[in-house]
Amino acid sequence: MTDTKRLYLTEAEVTEMLDMDLALEALDDVFRARSTGKVRNEPRRRLATGRGVMNFMAATWPERGWAGHKSYVSGDFRVMLYGTNGEGLLAIIGAGRMGQVRTGAASGIATKYMARRNSASVGIIGSGYQAETQLEAVCAVRDIKTVKVFSRTAEKREKFASTMSERLGINVVAVDSKEAAAEGMDVLVAVTSSVEPVITGDMIEPGMHINAAGNNSWMKRELDTAAIVKAALVACDDIDQTRIECGELMRAVEVGQFAWESLVRLDRIVAGLRTARQSDDDITLFESQGVAFEDLAVCGRLYEMALERGIGTVLPE
Amino acid sequence: MTDTKRLYLTEAEVTEMLDMDLALEALDDVFRARSTGKVRNEPRRRLATGRGVMNFMAATWPERGWAGHKSYVSGDFRVMLYGTNGEGLLAIIGAGRMGQVRTGAASGIATKYMARRNSASVGIIGSGYQAETQLEAVCAVRDIKTVKVFSRTAEKREKFASTMSERLGINVVAVDSKEAAAEGMDVLVAVTSSVEPVITGDMIEPGMHINAAGNNSWMKRELDTAAIVKAALVACDDIDQTRIECGELMRAVEVGQFAWESLVRLDRIVAGLRTARQSDDDITLFESQGVAFEDLAVCGRLYEMALERGIGTVLPE
Repeated sequence: MTDTKRLYLTEAEVTEMLDMDLALEALDDVFRARSTGKVRNEPRRRLATGRGVMNFMAATWPERGWAGHKSYVSGDFRVMLYGTNGEGLLAIIGAGRMGQVRTGAASGIATKYMARRNSASVGIIGSGYQAETQLEAVCAVRDIKTVKVFSRTAEKREKFASTMSERLGINVVAVDSKEAAAEGMDVLVAVTSSVEPVITGDMIEPGMHINAAGNNSWMKRELDTAAIVKAALVACDDIDQTRIECGELMRAVEVGQFAWESLVRLDRIVAGLRTARQSDDDITLFESQGVAFEDLAVCGRLYEMALERGIGTVLPE
Repeated sequence: MTDTKRLYLTEAEVTEMLDMDLALEALDDVFRARSTGKVRNEPRRRLATGRGVMNFMAATWPERGWAGHKSYVSGDFRVMLYGTNGEGLLAIIGAGRMGQVRTGAASGIATKYMARRNSASVGIIGSGYQAETQLEAVCAVRDIKTVKVFSRTAEKREKFASTMSERLGINVVAVDSKEAAAEGMDVLVAVTSSVEPVITGDMIEPGMHINAAGNNSWMKRELDTAAIVKAALVACDDIDQTRIECGELMRAVEVGQFAWESLVRLDRIVAGLRTARQSDDDITLFESQGVAFEDLAVCGRLYEMALERGIGTVLPE
């Protein structure tokens, strides 16, 4: 136990180490492991703090020797990582940027295993904090030639288009309606905090893969029920958490248009236990909630990388 | 946010600051606050780590400005404390000794408000890690003249008796049966990890107050059902957690001898909303599970004290 280095990693140190490839690799690994039942996860819970809530969520992955949890209050995100072989606390890791990258990567993994192989265009609705990594992740797993973005404020979507065009080396075009962002696209991403659906049934085209990444509260809806009904397959990161937090699926269940029993875990698709699509015309939908085992997988790697590179503050016993 | 000092407090630093009086005060406060509904608590959860489990539990107390959680793996206990007024992370606190003291203090608070005022004798069954603070807490709230201790290994109970006699200035006597530890005692404490009851119905005497402090798993039992049935009042720290973890009450419910509806929250007794005893002959029972709001109350004070005294490692952003 005394040989274990306990590290404190700041947001800046994490940002220095973390890129999308690392997150995609970590998530691919953990989804595969989860399909064997060897990764345990507890859904996010929330407790009132007066001004907002404290969120906390936990996971363990004994094969890798990691147990940990993420919590956040007032926009301060932290992961606490323990070793499962008697080491005790391994690290406390600033997890704001980490969460943004891993949420992108989760949509990347879903796109990799669910979208048509020849997908070459992406429409994205939303241009906020989480939108950049969503787009980056999709572009990392498919050879994307065309990107359209819509969000309500023209200035913001244009800023997003120019920033991302430069970063990705792809022409990202800002468009003036959500319909225009969806039309003719192979992949469609919603990453908003909307309570009114931004993807409606009439926007869905044959063969489309949809990532719904903004919906993590029963109060929110990004897809309307008509859109959900069109999907041949609906996958999620964790069924327990989706049943608590995914407002649009709750609504579809409530009106008798969706059954929880038909919801598929993404890990089963990643591991090849379940086929994502029967044909190129199938519509597939990934409902991303953001779960603790994703945080654990990325933070375990960050800890190892920090040890190797000598990054971080070493904590006393 | 930049003015907030984030502290890392080691076990040694906590041990230096924490005493029973501080813990008793903190718990008295938080139980009172909880009676008004202004303290939120999430029961302990456990996730397998291969060799054992990761435990995690959370609470918020917005009036005091604190939100936090405790987790532990392989005997390494840590509390993460956040501010609820935009400060983000306040402290990471070594919580092994803290847990031992706060669990003692919870029994102290129960004894203070539930035991007969003139209680002068304590029997204690168990002489392990948690037994010292159990006895210390009871002696802090009643004028105790006589203490008897029983545990299975003669050497251990004699060591406990001599250590505690010296520390408390009271004659602590090791006895050779659990019955001898209970006979004629005003307060009876069980603090074991027993799966077979150590307090049986025949050991219960009129007017006794019992603290059952070791039972925090459905697999364990410290009291048999005959003993539970004799209690005029059964109180607990948290009803949700008790229903998940208190093996002996589950067993009594299972055989139709106890009803969850009759379980009373200790906070209601502390706040005077509920009378603990109708007469000096009543038998009262406190089922201590150990809950997150107790950790939060003590750790919030430790953080404040550490700031005042300049104790702890200041962490970067």
